Amino acid sequence: MNTTHFEIKTKSKIYQVYIGESLLTNIVDFLDDKPKRVFVITDETVAKLYLETLTQSLKESGVETISEILADGESTKTLDTVFNLYNFLLENEASRSDMIIAFGGGVIGDITGFVASTFKRGLNFLQIPTTLLAQVDSAVGGKTGVNLNGGKNLIGTFYQPSAVIVDVTVLKTLSETDFITGLAEVIKYGVIMDSELLQILIEERNEIVNRESESIIKIVERSLKNKAHIVGLDEREEYGIREILNFGHTIGHAIESSSSYDIVHGQAVAIGMVEEARFSVDMDLLDIQSFETIVSILESYHLPTSIPDDMKFQQLREIVKHDKKIREGVLRIPILVELGKVEMKSIELSSGQDVITSMERNARC
Amino acid sequence: MNTTHFEIKTKSKIYQVYIGESLLTNIVDFLDDKPKRVFVITDETVAKLYLETLTQSLKESGVETISEILADGESTKTLDTVFNLYNFLLENEASRSDMIIAFGGGVIGDITGFVASTFKRGLNFLQIPTTLLAQVDSAVGGKTGVNLNGGKNLIGTFYQPSAVIVDVTVLKTLSETDFITGLAEVIKYGVIMDSELLQILIEERNEIVNRESESIIKIVERSLKNKAHIVGLDEREEYGIREILNFGHTIGHAIESSSSYDIVHGQAVAIGMVEEARFSVDMDLLDIQSFETIVSILESYHLPTSIPDDMKFQQLREIVKHDKKIREGVLRIPILVELGKVEMKSIELSSGQDVITSMERNARC
Repeated sequence: MNTTHFEIKTKSKIYQVYIGESLLTNIVDFLDDKPKRVFVITDETVAKLYLETLTQSLKESGVETISEILADGESTKTLDTVFNLYNFLLENEASRSDMIIAFGGGVIGDITGFVASTFKRGLNFLQIPTTLLAQVDSAVGGKTGVNLNGGKNLIGTFYQPSAVIVDVTVLKTLSETDFITGLAEVIKYGVIMDSELLQILIEERNEIVNRESESIIKIVERSLKNKAHIVGLDEREEYGIREILNFGHTIGHAIESSSSYDIVHGQAVAIGMVEEARFSVDMDLLDIQSFETIVSILESYHLPTSIPDDMKFQQLREIVKHDKKIREGVLRIPILVELGKVEMKSIELSSGQDVITSMERNARC
Repeated sequence: MNTTHFEIKTKSKIYQVYIGESLLTNIVDFLDDKPKRVFVITDETVAKLYLETLTQSLKESGVETISEILADGESTKTLDTVFNLYNFLLENEASRSDMIIAFGGGVIGDITGFVASTFKRGLNFLQIPTTLLAQVDSAVGGKTGVNLNGGKNLIGTFYQPSAVIVDVTVLKTLSETDFITGLAEVIKYGVIMDSELLQILIEERNEIVNRESESIIKIVERSLKNKAHIVGLDEREEYGIREILNFGHTIGHAIESSSSYDIVHGQAVAIGMVEEARFSVDMDLLDIQSFETIVSILESYHLPTSIPDDMKFQQLREIVKHDKKIREGVLRIPILVELGKVEMKSIELSSGQDVITSMERNARC
């Protein structure tokens, strides 16, 4: 079987990432210490498809397993759910010798990570991401998050997992939308820091679309290694390095929010990348061929590349104005300077030379 | 004015501790970067006595100040209060360029630290401890905590402050009980790792009891330097080093809990230290003179040295059995081997050779 692994070194923790096929059936092999008990936090969809496989594998290794199944979707990511999970752990007398497993997509990873980081000042926790988005991005890097009053991830911690186990086999059952959503983040890693990854995305497009394990493992590994490199340099967003991962996300978040989340994250980020790259072209920082390459790769994966006709620029502008990256009227945003390279720039929102104005001007042409 | 300071180096953060008189009146002088805004979290008692002084000092330095006053006491340390503080920060659009100040005793420090560590994945926060216990112990080291269903500090994080500012002037208004409670922890630092501190406690007993700043600054500084040394070696209790700070606390917690918190923390720890030191004598690990020195220092500060007559050993035993430091029936406990030196030992609770049995035997003599 095709399995690869590498080490992530952050200031707070060093841990392993395993990527391969059918890893769910022998999870304990990938852990340094066999836990006495594990608490699996998952959602309804994943539970239906894979919880039995995971539980069986743990049981065969002599590990007691207790599961908690949450409702699907972003609306689960509340402090109420956190409170319920605390009580679940308390009732089962969870201690530092136990391990928590986040078994699901980004929502499960975010909320489980938060609970693991705050119960008894931190329990061991393992990420087993089951969506492409979580596998190539959110399961690695230690960001945890809970929503508060509509504010996404307003509550959260930086807390690294003990290990990340990426079983690409589970992607076979992922919906087309969820699969494509994940690919947008892979393309982002190519665009901002890995032109070889862009080549793979072009050359192995058919294998990737057909979810062939060899190609999938290749793009997951490259994405995660890119992310690991950045997180290793700037775990807690202290040095203005980790921010480059926000490429496409300033406009992306505004589009997502403006559409009331009808346009899902990956689609919104795809459009955001196009618009933010176009801004680079407008500022004479990027050549038009590079811009067209990005658009063409996104299109080849059926990702959207322009905002819906009915979306209002004024609304997007209002949302961007409240972006949490803004300090004293200045937005720090990653700007593409060539394929595979971004630089952080400070944009004064009142200067008239900003991303939304540029979008609006181009839309009128 | 008499001001001293030193640096604390932990794996996650390096920060300064300032100790002196009347520091409240020029807080901003001690900060590397002047924050734009500060959010002061305090309690009713401290607010009445010192909030105006602090706010005035910040205002004079051009720092906008917004305060939130919590009810006094341990019962404030709930997730409900956390939720209210999140909303307070959200309503005021707190961002990473703002700073949170924990202005109070251990309760305020614990809950404010938790909120600061989890709002937007961590805001800057400053500890200004106002009780002796917080000044010599809890304000330094980065433990945050919230109670859950009666479980003390069951929820929490490790999160270091940006700085700790200890103004000993505020101790003048501290109640006798709160002052004595803090001294128990100072004595603990002497007993476990600093025999010179014990000498100061003996020689400057009158100055300390009279709360004379020079002697207070001396014992606060020594206590915090001892703690900083241990926390620097083992910030997250990963290497079995930080656990030595639990000396006196296994029995102490049991007594505190068994008395339904009528016996306050410092008093319970004083008795706990005596009983745990007696256990060392029983095991021929400590000479009787050292034991008697400990008892005599505690008595000279009017701290209790024996458990109330009506307290049941069986109840203490039950509480110790559920101590969170127990793993698979084995309690890891710091054992005194000479004045100024402890070693971690593993005690099998079922062996009959444990601390409670030893207490019970001695009580019968």
